[in-house]
Amino acid sequence: MDSKETTLTPLDHIPADIVCASDYEQLAPSFIAADRFAYIAGGSGHDVTLHKNREVFADFSLVPRLFHDVSSGNTQLNLLGKTLTHPVLLAPVAYQALVHSEAEIATAYAAESTDTCMVVSTLSSATLERVAKRAGQERWFQLYFQARDEDTFALVHRAAQAGYRAIVVTLDAAVQTPSIRAMRAGFRLPNDILPANLIHQQASEPPAMPAGQNHIFQCYAQHTLTRQQLKKLIEVSPLPVLVKGVLDAGDAGELKALGVAGIVVSNHGGRTIDCVPASLAMLPAIRQEVGNDYPLLLDSGIRSGADIFKAIALGADAVLIGRLQVYALAVAGALGVAHMLKLLRQELELCMATTGCVSIEDIKATKLHRQLEV
Amino acid sequence: MDSKETTLTPLDHIPADIVCASDYEQLAPSFIAADRFAYIAGGSGHDVTLHKNREVFADFSLVPRLFHDVSSGNTQLNLLGKTLTHPVLLAPVAYQALVHSEAEIATAYAAESTDTCMVVSTLSSATLERVAKRAGQERWFQLYFQARDEDTFALVHRAAQAGYRAIVVTLDAAVQTPSIRAMRAGFRLPNDILPANLIHQQASEPPAMPAGQNHIFQCYAQHTLTRQQLKKLIEVSPLPVLVKGVLDAGDAGELKALGVAGIVVSNHGGRTIDCVPASLAMLPAIRQEVGNDYPLLLDSGIRSGADIFKAIALGADAVLIGRLQVYALAVAGALGVAHMLKLLRQELELCMATTGCVSIEDIKATKLHRQLEV
Amino acid sequence: MDSKETTLTPLDHIPADIVCASDYEQLAPSFIAADRFAYIAGGSGHDVTLHKNREVFADFSLVPRLFHDVSSGNTQLNLLGKTLTHPVLLAPVAYQALVHSEAEIATAYAAESTDTCMVVSTLSSATLERVAKRAGQERWFQLYFQARDEDTFALVHRAAQAGYRAIVVTLDAAVQTPSIRAMRAGFRLPNDILPANLIHQQASEPPAMPAGQNHIFQCYAQHTLTRQQLKKLIEVSPLPVLVKGVLDAGDAGELKALGVAGIVVSNHGGRTIDCVPASLAMLPAIRQEVGNDYPLLLDSGIRSGADIFKAIALGADAVLIGRLQVYALAVAGALGVAHMLKLLRQELELCMATTGCVSIEDIKATKLHRQLEV
Amino acid sequence: MDSKETTLTPLDHIPADIVCASDYEQLAPSFIAADRFAYIAGGSGHDVTLHKNREVFADFSLVPRLFHDVSSGNTQLNLLGKTLTHPVLLAPVAYQALVHSEAEIATAYAAESTDTCMVVSTLSSATLERVAKRAGQERWFQLYFQARDEDTFALVHRAAQAGYRAIVVTLDAAVQTPSIRAMRAGFRLPNDILPANLIHQQASEPPAMPAGQNHIFQCYAQHTLTRQQLKKLIEVSPLPVLVKGVLDAGDAGELKALGVAGIVVSNHGGRTIDCVPASLAMLPAIRQEVGNDYPLLLDSGIRSGADIFKAIALGADAVLIGRLQVYALAVAGALGVAHMLKLLRQELELCMATTGCVSIEDIKATKLHRQLEV
Repeated sequence: MDSKETTLTPLDHIPADIVCASDYEQLAPSFIAADRFAYIAGGSGHDVTLHKNREVFADFSLVPRLFHDVSSGNTQLNLLGKTLTHPVLLAPVAYQALVHSEAEIATAYAAESTDTCMVVSTLSSATLERVAKRAGQERWFQLYFQARDEDTFALVHRAAQAGYRAIVVTLDAAVQTPSIRAMRAGFRLPNDILPANLIHQQASEPPAMPAGQNHIFQCYAQHTLTRQQLKKLIEVSPLPVLVKGVLDAGDAGELKALGVAGIVVSNHGGRTIDCVPASLAMLPAIRQEVGNDYPLLLDSGIRSGADIFKAIALGADAVLIGRLQVYALAVAGALGVAHMLKLLRQELELCMATTGCVSIEDIKATKLHRQLEV
Repeated sequence: MDSKETTLTPLDHIPADIVCASDYEQLAPSFIAADRFAYIAGGSGHDVTLHKNREVFADFSLVPRLFHDVSSGNTQLNLLGKTLTHPVLLAPVAYQALVHSEAEIATAYAAESTDTCMVVSTLSSATLERVAKRAGQERWFQLYFQARDEDTFALVHRAAQAGYRAIVVTLDAAVQTPSIRAMRAGFRLPNDILPANLIHQQASEPPAMPAGQNHIFQCYAQHTLTRQQLKKLIEVSPLPVLVKGVLDAGDAGELKALGVAGIVVSNHGGRTIDCVPASLAMLPAIRQEVGNDYPLLLDSGIRSGADIFKAIALGADAVLIGRLQVYALAVAGALGVAHMLKLLRQELELCMATTGCVSIEDIKATKLHRQLEV
Repeated sequence: MDSKETTLTPLDHIPADIVCASDYEQLAPSFIAADRFAYIAGGSGHDVTLHKNREVFADFSLVPRLFHDVSSGNTQLNLLGKTLTHPVLLAPVAYQALVHSEAEIATAYAAESTDTCMVVSTLSSATLERVAKRAGQERWFQLYFQARDEDTFALVHRAAQAGYRAIVVTLDAAVQTPSIRAMRAGFRLPNDILPANLIHQQASEPPAMPAGQNHIFQCYAQHTLTRQQLKKLIEVSPLPVLVKGVLDAGDAGELKALGVAGIVVSNHGGRTIDCVPASLAMLPAIRQEVGNDYPLLLDSGIRSGADIFKAIALGADAVLIGRLQVYALAVAGALGVAHMLKLLRQELELCMATTGCVSIEDIKATKLHRQLEV
Repeated sequence: MDSKETTLTPLDHIPADIVCASDYEQLAPSFIAADRFAYIAGGSGHDVTLHKNREVFADFSLVPRLFHDVSSGNTQLNLLGKTLTHPVLLAPVAYQALVHSEAEIATAYAAESTDTCMVVSTLSSATLERVAKRAGQERWFQLYFQARDEDTFALVHRAAQAGYRAIVVTLDAAVQTPSIRAMRAGFRLPNDILPANLIHQQASEPPAMPAGQNHIFQCYAQHTLTRQQLKKLIEVSPLPVLVKGVLDAGDAGELKALGVAGIVVSNHGGRTIDCVPASLAMLPAIRQEVGNDYPLLLDSGIRSGADIFKAIALGADAVLIGRLQVYALAVAGALGVAHMLKLLRQELELCMATTGCVSIEDIKATKLHRQLEV
């Protein structure tokens, strides 16, 4: 099956009836082939974690405040010694050619035009170098460890060379259970969807499996990073190394002690195994563990500026946007992604203005209202 | 599009199958064009706050009591030095010509015939002077601040001149996120729906936006009232000034200290931004903050006499009715609004009689039963 | 409209596919005209209280126990100095001719054949004397106070004369808000459905309403019993007087002090006003107030033997069955009611056996499991 | 009705679109006649307990951990002095000929090929001796007490003779209330579905029911085991005796004191009476009662490896799989059951690897995350 045939035609303009960023989620099914949409939208298994990610956000509300002069309000923050214009990052999403022929190049263009930090996936459809030319100053590279350390480090050095400013190592994708929705919809990765960054890598021998050993444990052990590998990466990398896919406070504390530059609290958008808690539910304990000055980001479940506000109020410095990114890309390419980002930021700013917050720090000092606290 | 063409014909009698005030909500869609109904019924965004407004009421129950002689029961209350016959006010609702050709004139007639205090909107379809001729003694004027202070104060003086007894400044409408429902239904304010009170105002220059500034924050700052503006209004106004749109207890305390005559706890019926708590959920803390003798009203979510009882038991002196007002106006004009008000009052009285309350003070001393307290 | 025409034909045998008592609820719509079914099944208003009555039961579970020898198990209890075979009473239900031509006569036959105490309504379709001939030894009479005390006391003396053993005064029916379901279904009491016990009462003048008074409060006051009326009834009545329709613990304490012989905790099956708590939710506090040795019954929401067990474990001595009684009567007349009662009792006995209870006292000493107590 | 006619044809291969063990539940209705499926899938009464069994699992989540070297992970456990490869047992399920012509023989083949301990039902469609030839080393025999002790003990000795290693006495099936679903679907046990183990038993006189006694209590007492009968069995049995169907912590403590070798916490998959708590909800208190070293198993509600993990983390040593066993048998015979077991084990292993557990003991030391703990 040819991927181009099943990609529906994106718009060349912003769709007329978009009120808020999450509307791109409503429109997306008309722009993505059904099997691919199921793959993108679905979580692992029966979507239990996927739904938990959303439900926890609904538990909290924002209390409007009066008389705060918000005219000087802004959404700037410092992250890894740089100033970001706003706390919304584009999450690493693999194989964007699945939904748009320009793939990550279009996304990068949107990132640059909206001053957004883009985190480019190891599994991008366009090479990290091509994406770098389009993306803005603040771009990070998401790293999957390769079978050979030399291949892994080569990716890191390519990223440094291409001007990426940080490495984000994904730790929670060792083994993912498939999505029932995707499987029922008959999704398979098309033959022409390829990882551009890895295409010239030398084929590595699959590691020998010792006889009589348990397959799952061995397989998992081979696909997960050890403390030593992470330490070595931190030593070798010319760029600061963040870690993505943390849900346990103790783990977060250890990562900080190991010299990790920052943590992304994430359950991979509900795509790992279908029995883990919502990212947001684990955030407060992790913030408490790592202290106030340590870079902490969150993904999984963000659909609006209010969600971003809630994540920051509960402990995040910034958030990453995954699915909405893909939906907006599918609907209207670079224009769609830029528009979605602009809407998210406006929604966040309106939440800030309404609650009298003029800075990200003000959000952090805000107490949310919890359902049933009457 | 002409508004008259899309307004369906209201009844000239009370509909036969109305059992309770909230039945007007069921009937309304047959009397209001679909796009206008979506606009009136919808909240901001995805109606999350709209539904929270209702859900919190359902958490509470009234415990019937025996042997209280309720024969002397009444619903009177003192508010701003005046005696009101009952604690149900008509909330300020803009552009009532959207649903009935007689607009606020019909509503005012209903208010007078039922001894109801009507709060007339700055954005009324009929001028405040015309409405004043019909409305009863107890009428208040809802004030939106205008771009020029002189226009704002002119409205206040017109209201005083026309015999209004209080000014209600709405603070929570600085920026409202649109309703997805209304947008999907294609609603736009028709060209012939105009703010009668403002029609002769001199056009004001849109304020210059300083270059390089953040649009949302600036815009918000320009559209929200400052403490100083409110203080000046209180000084200048010959009428007591109340404030509508408060959800935070600290804000309520400050407003009281500033000399505000009373507060309407409100989230604008779920029409501001779609992530704020239910009004009722915030009421008890606000009452605790301002003390027992301070005028406190509530709107957002009231559909029955039991809801009114619950609001008063949780801290309100009185409530304002928004959507039911519009629905009843659409269904049967002045007759409908008067009937709806009569039903609400009867429902409240029946709740009072059932719980052995003979006065609004008795309701305030009543403890509600909370779900799952077994 | 003639009532016979709209009554569907009941079976002359027990329906084949009944597994449990509540199955009569499933079958009933095929045996009762739609408008009548809506009237019987519906609660007041929007059925909020009706649903709360059921939900509270679902919160609790029974924990099975091992090794209790239950061979001597029985369901006997002492109530008002008499021994009842089991704790299931037939609630007073008005106008049973609405669903079956033999009306209360059929029900009485079922009561006798199953050793069930029947509480006959003031508003029965057959006279209390005719019902008494069929009902078993243990029969009670439900009393609505009449406009003239002489008429009220005449009813009490007729009941005593006819061998009824207790009077149950209903206190929660002063004013009932209609059922939306019943109204939408077009229900009106047919002309040929008459209160047989009252048919020869002399018409009484409607009480004069003092001018300028509040209608609802006056009306309520005229239709509710005073403490003095109740005291006088207790003095005059040759039979013990119970009170039905109590939800408040303080009221229960006062009734006991007044000399009332027992209390039925009830919200009239959700038929009074649609904002009161579930009966079961109020039961534990009432039992605590009146002490262990005071007769306490419960109705509203019972559909199974497990529900009866739960009610007793939470403080009731016995329960009354309303809607299931009517459904079974409609489906299969006396046979249906007897079968329904037999099933309920068997279900209760099975719950007792499973939890190792051999007596009603054992149930009272049992701790239920509450959802989410893990 | 002939059972063969109504059994749909099972596959001779693993179905292509199975992602996880619970998918067999989705496929099963295409392989089992509707009435039989209703009987197997349904719980007692209205399926209330059946649903509670599932809901409690959903309350808990697993928190992934980093950097645990899981390469040596395994799922072994010691139970009754034997080493089991994994903690998943096949629950005793009666009359497997209802869904597959090879019945328990196919299941036994799957058990052997996956190193799974099979618990064979007294009511198996194939004799325990025939099943024993196929099942693996670790096989247990589920015992229903027979009317005559000699028949009961004969079964125990046949089981010992055939190499079964333990007896599991089911205590919670004395009286089961039928499933409404099964009844509505018209299910009756077909005439050719017979208990192979009991077919040559001499017919016993039904026990005489003393006149005037209560039928349910007598019947229950006759069908439940006494403490004495259990003690005698333990004395007589050459095999260790476990007990299945315990929900109360006090009962569990007494069983341990009586010399029972282990306990299966179970509500019979929601098939006893429809008002008991979820098995999982009762597990922690029971583990606390019996101490850490006592064999405790759980069934009722397990559908995935995550569920198994949760059960072990909350106190179980191992779990039993009932419905999924039948579904997989119906879909693809021995192959299906083996595949289902393999999937469950892989799912469990993946949960272990994700949470850094390398042994069952590690699971027991893991704290689950509970919904709404934010």
